[in-house]
Amino acid sequence: MISRKTGKVWLVGVGPGDPDLVTVKAARALSEAQVWLIDDLVPDFMNCYASPGTEIVPVGKRGGRCSVSQASIHAQTLAHALAGRSVARVKGGDPLMFGRGGEEAAFLRGHGLEVEVVNGISSGLAAAQSLGIALTHRAHCHGVTFVTAHTRGDGEPDWRALAASGTTLVIYMGMHRIATIRESLLAAGMRADMPAGAVMHASCADERRWVGTLGTLTEAVNAGLASPSIILVGEVVATAMEQPAAAAAGLPLVFSPLPR
Amino acid sequence: MISRKTGKVWLVGVGPGDPDLVTVKAARALSEAQVWLIDDLVPDFMNCYASPGTEIVPVGKRGGRCSVSQASIHAQTLAHALAGRSVARVKGGDPLMFGRGGEEAAFLRGHGLEVEVVNGISSGLAAAQSLGIALTHRAHCHGVTFVTAHTRGDGEPDWRALAASGTTLVIYMGMHRIATIRESLLAAGMRADMPAGAVMHASCADERRWVGTLGTLTEAVNAGLASPSIILVGEVVATAMEQPAAAAAGLPLVFSPLPR
Repeated sequence: MISRKTGKVWLVGVGPGDPDLVTVKAARALSEAQVWLIDDLVPDFMNCYASPGTEIVPVGKRGGRCSVSQASIHAQTLAHALAGRSVARVKGGDPLMFGRGGEEAAFLRGHGLEVEVVNGISSGLAAAQSLGIALTHRAHCHGVTFVTAHTRGDGEPDWRALAASGTTLVIYMGMHRIATIRESLLAAGMRADMPAGAVMHASCADERRWVGTLGTLTEAVNAGLASPSIILVGEVVATAMEQPAAAAAGLPLVFSPLPR
Repeated sequence: MISRKTGKVWLVGVGPGDPDLVTVKAARALSEAQVWLIDDLVPDFMNCYASPGTEIVPVGKRGGRCSVSQASIHAQTLAHALAGRSVARVKGGDPLMFGRGGEEAAFLRGHGLEVEVVNGISSGLAAAQSLGIALTHRAHCHGVTFVTAHTRGDGEPDWRALAASGTTLVIYMGMHRIATIRESLLAAGMRADMPAGAVMHASCADERRWVGTLGTLTEAVNAGLASPSIILVGEVVATAMEQPAAAAAGLPLVFSPLPR
């Protein structure tokens, strides 16, 4: 009887979308893997890292619409690895921030597979880069909080505690609940003129950004921003307009849409 | 009179220490720059990305000991760029999370220079990878907060709000204040048996890690962890022991030092 060696699984974060924001380690894992199981949110241009003959399997799952269940993703990843293939489970951003990377790693390790997690640039950081702001600035705050506004059965973030923390808030999966987020933070005592911004498809060619205040937050939707976008709320967002492009365009210092 | 073109400045995040965790974009910027102004926290093995002839200038600044002032870093970066050299201002982690990247970018842009920020993997994410945990897990929390415990004149994080937020806490620059952090979080009502961990030099060959609880947090120091280390506090840290290495060594499920 031939004992078949199981394949290694890389849980690879490929960052916000720009292929240049992939790490050297991720690029190597992507080129070595025989099969990719790839999220919907990962743009096609990551395919530049695939070796010839790589099987690329989309396992799209976006917001409410669940085309492929989490159980099916687990089962497919396991089946490929048990068949001896090296697998890249390709996820946007970083596998350890949102996106259930921990659950997938635990499932696969529970089946005795070798799993290596490869960190990636989370889209909240790319959004900050795009707006020209630092997420922390010693003059404004002690830190930054990344939360998901996605709630299906998982309850709601404690907006009151988050507002009280004084940290910059970086909100993922929030566009479909943007009015509720605005109301919740205002109800938590946050000022209506607190600087706020949003970035859709950060780091990609079709990136869109908006800067305003918590009070005007829902205008981001009118500005054409939809899922997936990152929402940023906090004093540091006021520095967005330090960008030379904005300054050159003669825009006011804060609270205006940035030029594209 | 010859008008001299100013050099471009890249504010480059090179991640937690492993050269493979540099992004493709960062690697390109590092190899194109004629001068590097490099932080103390960035390991020498990043030099693999330097082109022959690159001038590498250490501008070390670590914790309390300020060998090079922030003003001097600003002035040196500016002088090199005004002299027409392309400059990589090389920072550990991501330039937009702690480390004053925002201040440096604003200063340089204020002098009319072209500044491009290149995101990097923050060491808190590498620490989570090292412990085998996800920073967010929908069963445990809605998000993750990155804070600095460094206080020189900048006050204290609001530990009560952070504890109430229910987010995973990732604490930078906290080793020299680890007893105070423990006391503050306990005083804020956090349970003494809340899982906690620490990772020194995450992703590097000399990495060290410790897993325990908030109550036993100061034992990380006895385990040999010193600055720079990342401290992690939250329910998700309980999953650290799902790592196969720990399971194979027959260690209890949580709250024990991980094997090296």
